[in-house]
Amino acid sequence: MIEHQEIAYLGHVELGTPKIEESLWFFKELMGMSEVARDGDSVYLRVWAEHDLTTLKLTAAPEAGIRHIGWRAMSADALERRAKALEATGQGIGWIEGDVGHGPAYQFRMPAGHLMEVYWDRELYEADPELKPYYKNMPQRMPSHGAGIRKLDHLHVLTDDVPANRGFLADELGFKLRENIVLDDGREISSWNSVSPIVHEIAVSLDAVVGARGRLHHVGWLCDNREDVLRAADIMAENGIFIETGPGKHKISHQYFMYVYEPGGNRIELVTQGYLIFEPDWKTVTWTEADRRDGQAWGLRMPASFHAYGTPEVDLESAEQREIPIARLG
Amino acid sequence: MIEHQEIAYLGHVELGTPKIEESLWFFKELMGMSEVARDGDSVYLRVWAEHDLTTLKLTAAPEAGIRHIGWRAMSADALERRAKALEATGQGIGWIEGDVGHGPAYQFRMPAGHLMEVYWDRELYEADPELKPYYKNMPQRMPSHGAGIRKLDHLHVLTDDVPANRGFLADELGFKLRENIVLDDGREISSWNSVSPIVHEIAVSLDAVVGARGRLHHVGWLCDNREDVLRAADIMAENGIFIETGPGKHKISHQYFMYVYEPGGNRIELVTQGYLIFEPDWKTVTWTEADRRDGQAWGLRMPASFHAYGTPEVDLESAEQREIPIARLG
Amino acid sequence: MIEHQEIAYLGHVELGTPKIEESLWFFKELMGMSEVARDGDSVYLRVWAEHDLTTLKLTAAPEAGIRHIGWRAMSADALERRAKALEATGQGIGWIEGDVGHGPAYQFRMPAGHLMEVYWDRELYEADPELKPYYKNMPQRMPSHGAGIRKLDHLHVLTDDVPANRGFLADELGFKLRENIVLDDGREISSWNSVSPIVHEIAVSLDAVVGARGRLHHVGWLCDNREDVLRAADIMAENGIFIETGPGKHKISHQYFMYVYEPGGNRIELVTQGYLIFEPDWKTVTWTEADRRDGQAWGLRMPASFHAYGTPEVDLESAEQREIPIARLG
Amino acid sequence: MIEHQEIAYLGHVELGTPKIEESLWFFKELMGMSEVARDGDSVYLRVWAEHDLTTLKLTAAPEAGIRHIGWRAMSADALERRAKALEATGQGIGWIEGDVGHGPAYQFRMPAGHLMEVYWDRELYEADPELKPYYKNMPQRMPSHGAGIRKLDHLHVLTDDVPANRGFLADELGFKLRENIVLDDGREISSWNSVSPIVHEIAVSLDAVVGARGRLHHVGWLCDNREDVLRAADIMAENGIFIETGPGKHKISHQYFMYVYEPGGNRIELVTQGYLIFEPDWKTVTWTEADRRDGQAWGLRMPASFHAYGTPEVDLESAEQREIPIARLG
Repeated sequence: MIEHQEIAYLGHVELGTPKIEESLWFFKELMGMSEVARDGDSVYLRVWAEHDLTTLKLTAAPEAGIRHIGWRAMSADALERRAKALEATGQGIGWIEGDVGHGPAYQFRMPAGHLMEVYWDRELYEADPELKPYYKNMPQRMPSHGAGIRKLDHLHVLTDDVPANRGFLADELGFKLRENIVLDDGREISSWNSVSPIVHEIAVSLDAVVGARGRLHHVGWLCDNREDVLRAADIMAENGIFIETGPGKHKISHQYFMYVYEPGGNRIELVTQGYLIFEPDWKTVTWTEADRRDGQAWGLRMPASFHAYGTPEVDLESAEQREIPIARLG
Repeated sequence: MIEHQEIAYLGHVELGTPKIEESLWFFKELMGMSEVARDGDSVYLRVWAEHDLTTLKLTAAPEAGIRHIGWRAMSADALERRAKALEATGQGIGWIEGDVGHGPAYQFRMPAGHLMEVYWDRELYEADPELKPYYKNMPQRMPSHGAGIRKLDHLHVLTDDVPANRGFLADELGFKLRENIVLDDGREISSWNSVSPIVHEIAVSLDAVVGARGRLHHVGWLCDNREDVLRAADIMAENGIFIETGPGKHKISHQYFMYVYEPGGNRIELVTQGYLIFEPDWKTVTWTEADRRDGQAWGLRMPASFHAYGTPEVDLESAEQREIPIARLG
Repeated sequence: MIEHQEIAYLGHVELGTPKIEESLWFFKELMGMSEVARDGDSVYLRVWAEHDLTTLKLTAAPEAGIRHIGWRAMSADALERRAKALEATGQGIGWIEGDVGHGPAYQFRMPAGHLMEVYWDRELYEADPELKPYYKNMPQRMPSHGAGIRKLDHLHVLTDDVPANRGFLADELGFKLRENIVLDDGREISSWNSVSPIVHEIAVSLDAVVGARGRLHHVGWLCDNREDVLRAADIMAENGIFIETGPGKHKISHQYFMYVYEPGGNRIELVTQGYLIFEPDWKTVTWTEADRRDGQAWGLRMPASFHAYGTPEVDLESAEQREIPIARLG
Repeated sequence: MIEHQEIAYLGHVELGTPKIEESLWFFKELMGMSEVARDGDSVYLRVWAEHDLTTLKLTAAPEAGIRHIGWRAMSADALERRAKALEATGQGIGWIEGDVGHGPAYQFRMPAGHLMEVYWDRELYEADPELKPYYKNMPQRMPSHGAGIRKLDHLHVLTDDVPANRGFLADELGFKLRENIVLDDGREISSWNSVSPIVHEIAVSLDAVVGARGRLHHVGWLCDNREDVLRAADIMAENGIFIETGPGKHKISHQYFMYVYEPGGNRIELVTQGYLIFEPDWKTVTWTEADRRDGQAWGLRMPASFHAYGTPEVDLESAEQREIPIARLG
């Protein structure tokens, strides 16, 4: 068991997209991110309120999906400890020298197949003079265009075994189980896990598709407030971006949300205003089928796609789907 | 044709409720209204930012529904002119002496059967010392409890003939048709009508139930902003009030909405932030089936009840329902 | 006396600026307006939610200030009536053929010297395909950059005689006095006047500078909600625009405000969420010195500049200033 | 040096008030707190979204001020470690058995004299059936009255030696210095310190009054969003509560704030939407005199009282005041 916090935060994600130019337009023009580097098929992006140089690596790829997930350690020692522990699980891959924005990283796979890495050294963003912020405690000037996101917030991955995968995150990285959904037949189908006071840096849910591996449900970016999400809804609608559902409120996590599909196909969430957990002895909140029968907050029903769609996309006509009696995702 | 504005605003509505105590709790505790008088089976209520004494008459009745609708005239002369015109239509009923809060009123029925009245003299609210407002231009102290509504905004009624009824409102009272929905088969199924710059004081839609008369779709109260509607959603949810749909945004009128059923069964809307029409030569915006195919703003779908439920309630199992190819209400 | 509404709305304003390029950057990049035409030293701008082609004419000029104010009439007949009445006052100048966006206009001067015009014919905006809006009832796609203003809202002018000038607006154009400030010595120093339910399309206040003529206090643009104004504050701050005061709330009009100086020197207000007046028999709300002693809502004090600065700017060191015991502007 | 987090959160504060009934009215009716117990001269209160039984102990006392400050430890072991370390400093007082809502606590004084305690065992709130929340992850139903605060957030204390006192908090309890203000003469006059990702659970500033000890600047409660703070401003104004300044935005911490005096005289802050620090290697942001010259965000100037008033109140006429060249508090 991990006693003290070893992972500090979700450092970056790499998304694959089959439409790199359209995806770049989405993240830069509509979401308001800025580009910091290019390397081969990849473009490195950042959000203005993030201190680290880059948090999104967007890579041209045949299929949409999450290509890797980077966790920043609490210290150089914590990184060493995690690398050893991960190696011992048999899920370890090994060290890489680093990438744009960070130094040596130890790579491994979650049992469900998602590629992850832990690292300590990272490059801080230094604003050019014309991007110096008004606020001395912010790294960059807030852009006057786009949806007003502040930072990378969390991601939500799909697996064929929720307890095994979120248990791996708990045992090897120290994630705490904040909330989950357990069906009447005992199956845990969703879990919200965090190392910090936010309810989740990573949610792990059961993939509706049997045999699918390493799929992404969505990546979430943080807005300051609900009005920003509502304004973002109009920006997305005006620019022809598909809004899957929302703006609405999750009962789980209390986050106010909107889900859209970026042009490459990845589901993107804009979220705000969840609750924080400061209690070291927080008791997991478990939602039953009965609890979930009334949908999201205020009775909103998620569309069917919300429970079946992920990236890479699977042909749902030909795929075998699991029988899940209720909507399984927050 | 009416050249100048003859009706100033929606002055009051009378709602019937089979659960008067529960309805009173809803309007006073959750909506934040205050009681100004009682008379027989009726209780007279007001909202803090309204200058007139009372805008809601709540009457114990076997069935929920709209019992009458009061329009304030632009002047004593306008009242006389409207009374004469209405009498000439054959829809006139005659003068009443008045009621709590207003003087002589001329009563009539819309062709669809809804009882209406026009009046000029009304009583202004005078706050008791302990309810004196902080703002000299407001009539009453803002309450620190409830959903934060400011004033009565509009109502939405159901008829078997939209053009005839909204035409009657145009010809006899001067309402202008701001927006409407016209099906591919030529049927106008919904219309938003106003005498002032707000998009509607009264919407008139086709009743889904054949043979129903004088039914109410909903009455709407105005909130200051979207956050008030979102906060109201939590207040309603915490207090067991059924939220039918929302908070969401209407494409028509741009109002941000939430629909709930008050305990007596009447559908209540909390709305905010619609657009205003200052143009004297406004051209009606007509929405086609194609325009309505994507639902409300951001893709929200209204539940089936939204298109069939009204008060008085009709047993939808036994009733004959009209075939309406798309969701017909904003 | 004017019985029926003759002026429909504030149609456009022309601002002079000694820094045309910087002013254009401010209105286009920060405020989010778009350019529709250029003619000589003038650039014609519009806001996305406005139906008329253009509402702001920005003209390179030696001094900042309001060059002319355009009022749209309720009808062609109303325009004829107003032209005749204005001519009879001796303040009339005569007809012009029109300008970009509107047809024949009758020009005149307010007693205080401000150039005004009334017109009926105007050009409607037609969006190019790539700017077609998501909302059929809107004329143009909402931009994803800038402060989120929706439309031109009002202006505030300075005079040496408030009663004479707001009386002229009442007698010749039909403006109603909604609120005003009257000092203990009987001087009316500020007035809020409107033809529509908004509290003011034009405020008229006493100029602090003796001998100044035709000065502008500010022009106000409407935002959807307070969060937009707060977000605009960060946009202005991040871009080095001087924020004179706010965001805060006016007691008078209830508008939530922020005042900035555009690079050319004109004071600009971003406002939202005032109250509406539907009563034909509205009684002017008069604020006394005692009423104004506590400042704006929540106790905010306006800076000294708010009461002395206007455009064209006057050298306050050498100018004679009126003694006005309290802050005189809302 | 403390390597791992030992203090979990600010558990409770005890405020003295010379007007216990009026203070109770303020905290219950206007702030929306609920009473959970009474004992002697003290009333125990809580906010609906807090899991612990009680977070505010309000005690009738001759003078306003902060009577004690309770920190919850990360574990029983952490409590033992802290007690030993504190004892070794000479600032230790000893163990108490507990109080309403928590078990054994080790008490001590900050060098500046403020009484503090650390504890581990605490009582969780259990809602009565009629207060069961809509949200399973919340402990209590959200009230439909009052300012909409969610939880106790932070406090701000005054000392005669900022480095010594915030250093004590760092060395003995593990607080990290997030932001501070350092004058040109080298004096550190304000510091924001936290154990969790929020910018401060406790700020420590230089008391403007020479010789004053153990004074409170303010206690802050968290609102969900800026609209709640704005709505609270109207609630406070309507109920005659003195608003000292705000709503406005701090540059430091980015919190949107409003300061009021509760009837007993203690300064109360309603705050929302600060930024979070997840970086384990956060570098303190130091603000200089030059940085602070433009006031709060958007240029707001704090009133003089903000820099001199604290509780217990001191007669500023007779007291010796320190010369502090700029506004020293966020």
